[in-house]
Amino acid sequence: MAKTHKKPKPKAETPKGFRDYFGADVAARDNMLRAIGGVYHRYGFEALESSAVETVEALGKFLPDVDRPNEGVFAWEEDTGDWLALRYDLTAPLARVFAQHRNDLPSPYRRYAMGPVWRNEKPGPGRFRQFYQCDADTVGSASMAADAEVCAMLCDALEAAGIERGDYVVRINNRKVLNGVLEVADPDKTADHNAILRTIDKFDKVGKAGVRELLTTGRKDASGAFIDGVGLGADQADPVIAFLTARGETAAETLANLRGAVGNSEVGAIGITELETIAELLSAQGYGPDRIIIDPSVVRGLGYYTGPVYEAELTFEILDRKGRKRQFGSVAGGGRYDDLVKRFTGQEVPATGVSIGVDRLLAALHEKGRLANAEAGPVVITVMDRDRMADYFAMVGELRGAGIRAEVYLGNPKNFGNQLKYADKRGSPIAVIEGGNEKDAGIIQIKDLILGAKLAENATLEEWKARPSQFEVPRGDLVARVLEILANQRADTP
Amino acid sequence: MAKTHKKPKPKAETPKGFRDYFGADVAARDNMLRAIGGVYHRYGFEALESSAVETVEALGKFLPDVDRPNEGVFAWEEDTGDWLALRYDLTAPLARVFAQHRNDLPSPYRRYAMGPVWRNEKPGPGRFRQFYQCDADTVGSASMAADAEVCAMLCDALEAAGIERGDYVVRINNRKVLNGVLEVADPDKTADHNAILRTIDKFDKVGKAGVRELLTTGRKDASGAFIDGVGLGADQADPVIAFLTARGETAAETLANLRGAVGNSEVGAIGITELETIAELLSAQGYGPDRIIIDPSVVRGLGYYTGPVYEAELTFEILDRKGRKRQFGSVAGGGRYDDLVKRFTGQEVPATGVSIGVDRLLAALHEKGRLANAEAGPVVITVMDRDRMADYFAMVGELRGAGIRAEVYLGNPKNFGNQLKYADKRGSPIAVIEGGNEKDAGIIQIKDLILGAKLAENATLEEWKARPSQFEVPRGDLVARVLEILANQRADTP
Repeated sequence: MAKTHKKPKPKAETPKGFRDYFGADVAARDNMLRAIGGVYHRYGFEALESSAVETVEALGKFLPDVDRPNEGVFAWEEDTGDWLALRYDLTAPLARVFAQHRNDLPSPYRRYAMGPVWRNEKPGPGRFRQFYQCDADTVGSASMAADAEVCAMLCDALEAAGIERGDYVVRINNRKVLNGVLEVADPDKTADHNAILRTIDKFDKVGKAGVRELLTTGRKDASGAFIDGVGLGADQADPVIAFLTARGETAAETLANLRGAVGNSEVGAIGITELETIAELLSAQGYGPDRIIIDPSVVRGLGYYTGPVYEAELTFEILDRKGRKRQFGSVAGGGRYDDLVKRFTGQEVPATGVSIGVDRLLAALHEKGRLANAEAGPVVITVMDRDRMADYFAMVGELRGAGIRAEVYLGNPKNFGNQLKYADKRGSPIAVIEGGNEKDAGIIQIKDLILGAKLAENATLEEWKARPSQFEVPRGDLVARVLEILANQRADTP
Repeated sequence: MAKTHKKPKPKAETPKGFRDYFGADVAARDNMLRAIGGVYHRYGFEALESSAVETVEALGKFLPDVDRPNEGVFAWEEDTGDWLALRYDLTAPLARVFAQHRNDLPSPYRRYAMGPVWRNEKPGPGRFRQFYQCDADTVGSASMAADAEVCAMLCDALEAAGIERGDYVVRINNRKVLNGVLEVADPDKTADHNAILRTIDKFDKVGKAGVRELLTTGRKDASGAFIDGVGLGADQADPVIAFLTARGETAAETLANLRGAVGNSEVGAIGITELETIAELLSAQGYGPDRIIIDPSVVRGLGYYTGPVYEAELTFEILDRKGRKRQFGSVAGGGRYDDLVKRFTGQEVPATGVSIGVDRLLAALHEKGRLANAEAGPVVITVMDRDRMADYFAMVGELRGAGIRAEVYLGNPKNFGNQLKYADKRGSPIAVIEGGNEKDAGIIQIKDLILGAKLAENATLEEWKARPSQFEVPRGDLVARVLEILANQRADTP
């Protein structure tokens, strides 16, 4: 007989850049999505769940070419020759949905959406290729009130998600102001505007003097290497620096400084008026500079923004992997994108919205120790006699009927120690024991595992005796005593 | 100057077989997932969310070949040459997760999972290529108590999801009994067992006599065409027919009949003992034949089942697209699969579980008229004076602060009729109006839109006068009066 070659076993591994989420992590994200979604809903936004898969052409931005059609997205070719892809954000699908269903949707269309998005990027530590976003957008409103509302709602959403006031700030800027500054700095449009934008983005790192050098003749960096300048003249750099350093004590002061920076640029003046309107509306609602500030140094990366842009940043410090303090940074961003629906319909449809990076927010709460690492496990009914499973099932049925999370141990019951180890691993609050003797006597043993663990750790002999962690109770008192112990455990939790 | 060719506009369309879910539909699914997940959780199962993307080899079953590597799944090749795919169910990923994390997970590992799965199938009416499943499985328990528990939990989950008792039935069978019957019918293993299984599956359609013909010499179908038989002798067909018609008035009767059908097959006897144990445990918990029955005609399609299999069916009738009555059919299924983890580890790990087809269940509730088609919209603050947006924002802030879903109209406020049309389209319960005169007088107008619509439809003049749907109230009473009207509307809802 010929030898049969066995196929090699598949590897039990998530693909690189993907991960699994267990128990407490799933619950924490679920709670956060529900909290944020609750705020969006109360603000009048309506839920939308679009499919995870879109045509590559509808997603846009990533255009097919011959070799690797879809850098940045996960894409594949259909039998029909069409290319499909996993969505990389929730905004591109919204533009498609609005264009497709615009005759049936109310206008303005206010929608929120939450779910995973996928990026075909190189994975790295803490960088995953699937992560959750939670977005809210208003499509069909050109009013700055829509932008102001989104910023206010973002504050409320962050607080609902567990970020305390003072631990975050929402920073607002406007692309039009930036365009105005560039008009003034470079009226002949000879300079490389992208290089100027990249330089502006370095303000946090290199400061005012550094940016001035980079905008003009160049700069020696910390390592001694020389970085070429953008080549603006000193007087051309002035409005850019004025823009970058425009932030004053108050919104009014910042706006006055910006007015200086844009000179007589028309688009710049429009941008400043827009920021002014937003600031007024926010201030009227009590969203002051402790929560929202106008900050000209905000430059959002996405190319489709056409007006106000915003970013939420956590202001508390965390320790990085080398133990150095750093600010946690951005957890949400958004802005106005008036041309995204136009791609489909040819007609301009103004739109603005925000996206919260839920997984980053969860990571921040983890770092701050504000998320539970484990959930409470179920009450475990141990199995002393495998022929009496029906008795144990009757018990667990009573507990579940009273709304208590409970289960019968379903592993091999031979080794009782394994059953208690299992209960421990599950974080079970209580174990219930009914052997043959107990059955005959009409009683059960109830072990308070939380108290037991506490006593085992640091109790004196007196405490141990004074507060037993195992009780013998009549079988009929099962539910009442379990409820009582659970209530005591809750009361004991700091 | 050369003409610039514009790129054609992308089509605003979901890919074929995919769809978008709006407002009420998203909420209905969310509620259902939460209800089912709540039952799973109370039973002691722990949440797991694995990534949507798996390696093709980990998913298994769909093996790469040269032309079209992944019939049935959406798959693509990585730069590294690896093939990745979207999960097609939640069971294959569970086997991978358990194999990967087995040293850290409790055993038995009881997990529930919910989320979309993707099938690269030909889309059809009502058949989508992305749909939700909601699964619970116990990995690492060989006990029939685990199977019994899953069946009981399935009943509780269906009821929590809104299916009333009596409108569903869970049917249980066992692959081992079937194997026993085949041992008896065809001891020399000369017949085509897959053909026999396919024939058994036709029992519902062609009945006992039809199955007997198909198992033996063949049969003329309704159209007059002749279908070849499997070629069993008449006495070989007997045990198969005995198996198929084994269902009695009680579980005990069914089991006795099955015992006759499997003769002295060892595996058949084991299968019957397993069913007996399950039936006893279920009966001890009060899950009687009104909810769970042993039904030998259940043959689950998936190849990986090794023992008990179960299926939940809705028993009420719906009208099909041609107006004919038909039963809604299967909405959940599962079974024991003891070899799935072994693919990865080489060691046998017993496992059993169930998957609820959430979208099918939602469709069933829709058909029965048990789901709302629309949610209540937000209170809409209309804009009478676009320079006073801050006033309107103050109002909406007060309402939201009181937990009321509310928004300011953010479209172009010029045409007041459009604002009321918008409120109507959103299903808004109330519109608030504050023009210049009202502002000066310190009052606002509150329109009860639900009552207004009712009166417009069928009120007499007296009723109209007796119960006005628009009120003039002091500005300071905004929140109190809105709460009062909302409470009245709820009380009026049947």
